[in-house]
Amino acid sequence: MPATRGGFDGEWFTEEANGSSRFAVKMDALLHEERSPWQKISVYDSSFFGRVLTLDDVFMLSERDEFVYHEMLVHVPLLAMPDPASVLIIGGGDGGCLREVLRHDCVRRVVLCELDERVSRVCEEYFSWPASAFADARTECVFEDGIAFVKEHTAAFDLVIVDSTDPVGAAVGLFQREFYESVRACLRSGGVMTAQTESPHWNADMLGAINREIGSAFTQVDSYLAMIPTYPGGCWSLAWASSTRCPGDFFDQQRAKEIAASCSYYQPGLQSAAFALPVFAERACSGENLFERFDSKVYKNRNPDD
Amino acid sequence: MPATRGGFDGEWFTEEANGSSRFAVKMDALLHEERSPWQKISVYDSSFFGRVLTLDDVFMLSERDEFVYHEMLVHVPLLAMPDPASVLIIGGGDGGCLREVLRHDCVRRVVLCELDERVSRVCEEYFSWPASAFADARTECVFEDGIAFVKEHTAAFDLVIVDSTDPVGAAVGLFQREFYESVRACLRSGGVMTAQTESPHWNADMLGAINREIGSAFTQVDSYLAMIPTYPGGCWSLAWASSTRCPGDFFDQQRAKEIAASCSYYQPGLQSAAFALPVFAERACSGENLFERFDSKVYKNRNPDD
Repeated sequence: MPATRGGFDGEWFTEEANGSSRFAVKMDALLHEERSPWQKISVYDSSFFGRVLTLDDVFMLSERDEFVYHEMLVHVPLLAMPDPASVLIIGGGDGGCLREVLRHDCVRRVVLCELDERVSRVCEEYFSWPASAFADARTECVFEDGIAFVKEHTAAFDLVIVDSTDPVGAAVGLFQREFYESVRACLRSGGVMTAQTESPHWNADMLGAINREIGSAFTQVDSYLAMIPTYPGGCWSLAWASSTRCPGDFFDQQRAKEIAASCSYYQPGLQSAAFALPVFAERACSGENLFERFDSKVYKNRNPDD
Repeated sequence: MPATRGGFDGEWFTEEANGSSRFAVKMDALLHEERSPWQKISVYDSSFFGRVLTLDDVFMLSERDEFVYHEMLVHVPLLAMPDPASVLIIGGGDGGCLREVLRHDCVRRVVLCELDERVSRVCEEYFSWPASAFADARTECVFEDGIAFVKEHTAAFDLVIVDSTDPVGAAVGLFQREFYESVRACLRSGGVMTAQTESPHWNADMLGAINREIGSAFTQVDSYLAMIPTYPGGCWSLAWASSTRCPGDFFDQQRAKEIAASCSYYQPGLQSAAFALPVFAERACSGENLFERFDSKVYKNRNPDD
């Protein structure tokens, strides 16, 4: 588990990863802070990153770079399907993935299933995109546990996006085989799941473990990468999982061009390039950790529940 | 210019970028510190990153991730040439690029031209690879100013690698048109220059400015990216410049397979995938900064010489 401790000292918000590195952002102001039934929700303003959302003192998104994660988690799968009509987003209460899904005119229905309604309400107040995304006629917001939701729906979605926090606390179940099996059952024929699967560099062991869980529920698991400067290590892995569709099977070039015209990260060339993994990441996906000699020093004395 | 301030408080080494973000590494020990005629040279030991080299308190390399930068700066150009025989490395006193160049049996001569001999001597003492790389029969170490060196050599090298520090102090001249013109003249027909060109995310304006300078000396400038977790923003741009050769013109598949077998980052699929730039990076290369609204707040009051 990623032991990530953070905090705000009135000037710098600091996030610590693995007890070994820290990323800190200079904040101009703390705009909002509350404790929901699930977590501490904070919104800051900063010059370099714009507004920033943290949950339990873990960096979730900044106005400067949120587009990377959201565009890549959404457009890569949607452009690899001929006519995706229905999408389920698990988590993603900030509305970023929702905003990107709604750019696809072919999508007729998007369900956002977020555990913590307060995340959505706070984001609606402090960020520019959630209000219109939540109000879209195609959007249904459901504030309940995603694990329960997928169990109750069968063959209902062309794409399920798991936009979760790290695998700690309430989110642990979103990284386990049982959940992935429910997601598979929840997909229509030809359906795909994408999910965030942590840092291939900082959390190589974790990426391997997550991919094993996914691989026990789906026949096809591929990983692709996106460069997210505000996440630990600056590079993040995303999973493509399906029992019927490989990432390169289909690509809607025309729609990709249209979508890319309003993107800040995604462009058609990344549709395959993002799957060309560096050696260390490819190995991490299959459970081999090239950083073992370093990681073992850091993790050996740690509580496995950290 | 990247105003980067760092420091070691006895436990954490901290590097500040643009006055807006900080990256810090927990160190177990400061193994070495000296002031050469050119800069402060420090070597630390850490659990998560292994040994770490900093110059003037700026992160240069760690044992954990140095392979990314060195493999990508070296193998991408060398594998795009049929029979590269001679290589010049400007800077690169740590021997990392040299080590990677020497993996190519076709290379008969490698000149390492490093301004500060103390960097090489210190690295030789604290890192595993420099001693054998410096001692290789094909290696010539020259400790002098790279700007002067390239002026004195014409049509001598198939590849020139500019492995410099950031464009501050003694390194400023390594980012200017006059230097790039000397490099061009220093290349044999079909020759290529690769160079580190800063962060597309943290320093979009600077990347655009550097590429303009390179483009005034070479007819072909392309940028490619590598994910380097210990550099600001976690993603670094590298330039390919040539007056005769495009990145995709030639690829030695057989040699690429052999080289990749001993790599931790480079694999043949990255030869083209690394050039598939995210939109913001592509725009930065051509001088358009998608982060202008954030950067302007941070840079507007800063001394341009910072």
